[in-house]
Parts: sequence; C-alpha cells; structure tokens
Amino acid sequence: MSVMKESRDAVAVVGAGVIGRSWAFVFSRAGCRTRLYDPDRTQRERAIHWLKTAGAGEGRISAHDEIAEALEGVSYVQESGPENLAAKKAIFAGLDRLAPEDAILASSTSTLDMSAIAEGLPGARRAIVAHPVNPPHVIPVVEVLPGKMTDPEVVARARGFLSAVGQSPVLMNFYVPGFLLNRMQAALVREAIHLVESGVADVGAVDAVIRDGLGLRWAILGPFGVANTNADGGIREYYGRYGGSYAELMNDLGPTPSFDRAQIERLGRRTDAMTNGSRSEILEWRDRLIRKIRDLKQEDPMPRGGSS
Amino acid sequence: MSVMKESRDAVAVVGAGVIGRSWAFVFSRAGCRTRLYDPDRTQRERAIHWLKTAGAGEGRISAHDEIAEALEGVSYVQESGPENLAAKKAIFAGLDRLAPEDAILASSTSTLDMSAIAEGLPGARRAIVAHPVNPPHVIPVVEVLPGKMTDPEVVARARGFLSAVGQSPVLMNFYVPGFLLNRMQAALVREAIHLVESGVADVGAVDAVIRDGLGLRWAILGPFGVANTNADGGIREYYGRYGGSYAELMNDLGPTPSFDRAQIERLGRRTDAMTNGSRSEILEWRDRLIRKIRDLKQEDPMPRGGSS
Repeated sequence: MSVMKESRDAVAVVGAGVIGRSWAFVFSRAGCRTRLYDPDRTQRERAIHWLKTAGAGEGRISAHDEIAEALEGVSYVQESGPENLAAKKAIFAGLDRLAPEDAILASSTSTLDMSAIAEGLPGARRAIVAHPVNPPHVIPVVEVLPGKMTDPEVVARARGFLSAVGQSPVLMNFYVPGFLLNRMQAALVREAIHLVESGVADVGAVDAVIRDGLGLRWAILGPFGVANTNADGGIREYYGRYGGSYAELMNDLGPTPSFDRAQIERLGRRTDAMTNGSRSEILEWRDRLIRKIRDLKQEDPMPRGGSS
Repeated sequence: MSVMKESRDAVAVVGAGVIGRSWAFVFSRAGCRTRLYDPDRTQRERAIHWLKTAGAGEGRISAHDEIAEALEGVSYVQESGPENLAAKKAIFAGLDRLAPEDAILASSTSTLDMSAIAEGLPGARRAIVAHPVNPPHVIPVVEVLPGKMTDPEVVARARGFLSAVGQSPVLMNFYVPGFLLNRMQAALVREAIHLVESGVADVGAVDAVIRDGLGLRWAILGPFGVANTNADGGIREYYGRYGGSYAELMNDLGPTPSFDRAQIERLGRRTDAMTNGSRSEILEWRDRLIRKIRDLKQEDPMPRGGSS
C-alpha cells in the first residue's frame, strides 16, 4: 500500500466502539500516530485490547482520558460517536473548540447530513462526513460527503488523506438519505426479501445467486463497468438493446417489506437453515477472504490502455 | 473440482454462440464427451476455434452437421438458441423427437417460462430451464427452473449433473420475469442510474462503492448471509434494529430510468471517462480475477461449525 507523507501525521479517533477501533487500525497501519479517545473508559480499554490482539501498530496508538490531550497536534479527527444529531452536534462543538485550527473534523455518520451537524459551528468549513463500510480496516470504501459549508479545499484534503492511508474515498456531491452504499444495498435487499417472501426461491438460493454470480462480478467491476463489458459495443449497445427489458423488470420489482416481527422471524429461521458455522468464525473467514481479494486486485489492477 | 460419475456422460450443446461455446467449455472441462451443434456452420467453426484457443478439453469435443448425430447417446442437452418463444418451441420439438428418451433437455433462456416452451411437448416432463450467468465457464451460478410439467426427478437430476460439472445450480420454485439474478441486478442498477442521473455522484464513485465495498462482501456472502453477520445477534437483531430505517430508505429509492437515447448517451460518456482499457483486455482481466476469487473460496470454504 502506498502511503504518502500526510499519513504519518497524528490522527485522533474519537469514539472507540467497533467502528472507531477499526479506524484506529487503519490509521496506525498506515504509519500515523493514532490517539484514541472515548468518554467510556471500558470502551477504550476494550478497543486497546482488540487492537493489540489484531496486531495493529501498537507503538503508534495511545489511549487518552482527556479529549483535549487526544486532539493535541493532530491534522485529522475521525469521530465515531452515537448516531444521533444532538450527540454529534455536541461532539463537533468540542472538537472544533479543541482541535488544531487546520485539522479536518470527519464524522463516521451513516445517516446524518453534515449541514445539520455543523449548523452554527464556527469551524463548519472543516467539518465533513467520511462514512466507512464496516469494518474499515478490511473494506476500503469511504463515502466522503461535504456539508453546505464545507470548504472544497477540505474535501480535497480529506480525500487525499484517506487515499494515503489505503482507503478508497468516493465523493458524493450532496446529501441523500442512506448515501450511495446503503441505498444500493437497500434496493437489492428489498428484492431479495421479496423473492423469498413470495416463495420464488429460498434464502440459500438467493444468497448463492449473489455470492456465486453477481458478487463475483461486482467485486471487480461496478454496475457501470459491468454494463460496459456486457456487449461488444459497450454500455451504449447494452442499454440500447436491453434497456426496454430492464425497464419492464424494474417496474415489476417487489414492494418494501414490512420488517414486522413475524417476517423477521421467518427470515431468521430460513437463514439459520443455511448457515451453521459460529458467527465469529464466519466473520474471521469473511475478513480473511476479503483481504485476499483486495490483494488479488492490487497485484493485478484493471488494465488502463494507453494511460500506463 | 469434484466430478461425479454422471459428468463423464455424453452431453449435447445445441447452439454454438457465446453462451453455447462457454457451456461446451464447462462440460468438456468436467470430462464429458461434448457434442456441439449449430445450424450455422460458421458459428460452429468459430466456437471450435475459440474452444481450441481457450485450451478446452479438445479431444472430448466434437462438432456435428446433423442435430440427430449430436444427440446420439447423450444424457443431457443444453440448448442456447435464439431468445424467442417460437424458436425455442421448434428447437425443443426437435430435441424431444431425437434425443434419447431419458436425456434431460435444458434451455439457457434468460426470459422464457418452460411451461410455455414445453406446452404440448410429449416430453415436457424432461424439459427444464438452466439459465447460466455469462460466461458459465467463469461464473458458476445456474438458475434451475422447472416448468409446470417438469418431473421433480428431472429437477433433482439436472441439479446433480450441474453440480457435478462444477457449476452452482440454484433452484427456483416457479417462474418470475428476470428470474432471481436479473431481478436483483435490475434493482441495484435502477438505483445506481438514479444516483448518477440525479447528480448525487458520478459513475466512478458509484462503481467504486460496489467494487471496493458491497461487492467485496457479496463475492463471499449473499444478502442474507451479510445481514446475519452485521449484528452480534444475527439477522433477527439486525433487521429488528434497522428494519425501520431500511424500509424508509426503500421507500425513498429512485424511479425506473427512461433508457431513452439521450440518457444512454449520457451514461456512455460518463462511463468512457472512467475506463480506458480495451474491452477485450478488461474482459480477460475480469475473468482471470473471478477465477482466482473462486480458487480462494474453494481453498478456504465457509466454516461449517459442527457439521464438519
């Protein structure tokens, strides 16, 4: 992984839950001095224990009782606190007051608009959303999303920093609920549940279609890249020929499921029947395979024609 | 790849286009004597040339001028002819007349219902849909879909045979337009196009979210497997906690795009800006990586707890 100068800067991780500790792994792995803060001491200690067990860059990680201490001299702050607006506003007020003037203040929020979090904040220009995919030390995508007051220079600097520490930042131009990832996931999940609930196929069949079919392509090319390789003439020929059939299918897709207790229990029982490894074993296995897939892609990147 | 006895049987591939030739690769690789038929001599010759270049089990593949000759003594027929009902009906009438009485007659159709193709066919009980993902010699999923008259024993035998030749057959209980794969693909693509067309993000950002985010998970676990690993308490806890937010997002998803000429051209230009390798290089690269991902999964399969 190529690590640029900036990644050796000091970074603060504020909130040491599952997401925060994984961020600490990312930053320390890239060579950053990483300062961990959480108001809950037990949470901090658990995170440090997890980081040690996971073999994260120990010498570069420190835990702090005082947020002011954690923020000293940092150039980037990644906040992963509770997912509600009042809490985020309070945390950002503190970060803005205490962090060095040119430090970027990034939030891991998956649902909130930075325009709302940073409303009335003196340093709103340096506040930005950097929403990871869980867990960020395994999955590289980060959705980067400025608020209305965020300085374009801060957007560029945040993207550069996240690339430098080995993540794959993607830029959103403005806020929509669910951002990109959760919207596309919701679209697919809605139809997956519809296919099971309407009796077309069982949970195992639907999952196999993804993991032995669509997912194999999508680990390598996104939906536009796939469309562009599905016909000799590329995406224009593909959608020119099949756009009509696609539109018919799209209009035939199932409705939003109820997610009531009975439905969740049905899905639960069907999912139990499919898997019988322990959850922690399956998580370890998943993360191990994802790392290997990332290695494959890094060793053999997409051919870039003339652009060397 | 474990190859059972049945896979050494003789198989006929009827229709030698891009899908048919890839099926011939699958069957010959698994050790089947593979007989190729296409009414178009040029098509046949192209397929044989492609199979030789690709290093497919040459000694086991033969091309035939006469369909009756191709069908002699086979236990399984994979039809990959033109995608319209009249053509499929005519082909299946011929297959049913000429193939050995106990041979399975499978169609690669991606859109048609076997109940319609086999209507009035004396051998309707042995006719079934086996829809591959292109190209089947790289991507293992096959959607297996009986018609109303298909014998359950034929369904079981078709699934067993497809597993034996190294594919991953998934069973659908009844026909729905688009089957499983294209419906879920359409659901995701609809939202992907909506996000680009509404200006939220560009084609490159949407594709990166899939290939460096969701696709990495989905190459390993389907949507239910992912939901089951997203909370300590599994899918019940996950949807119990987030079902309401999911439902809100699902109700906020974008509409079916127009796929009119102007829209396709806009998507085409945006996709051009993202990729500049040649299409054939990118296809080779994609297939190479997918094979390696399949190898990873075969070497390190999902932990199965007590079930050894």
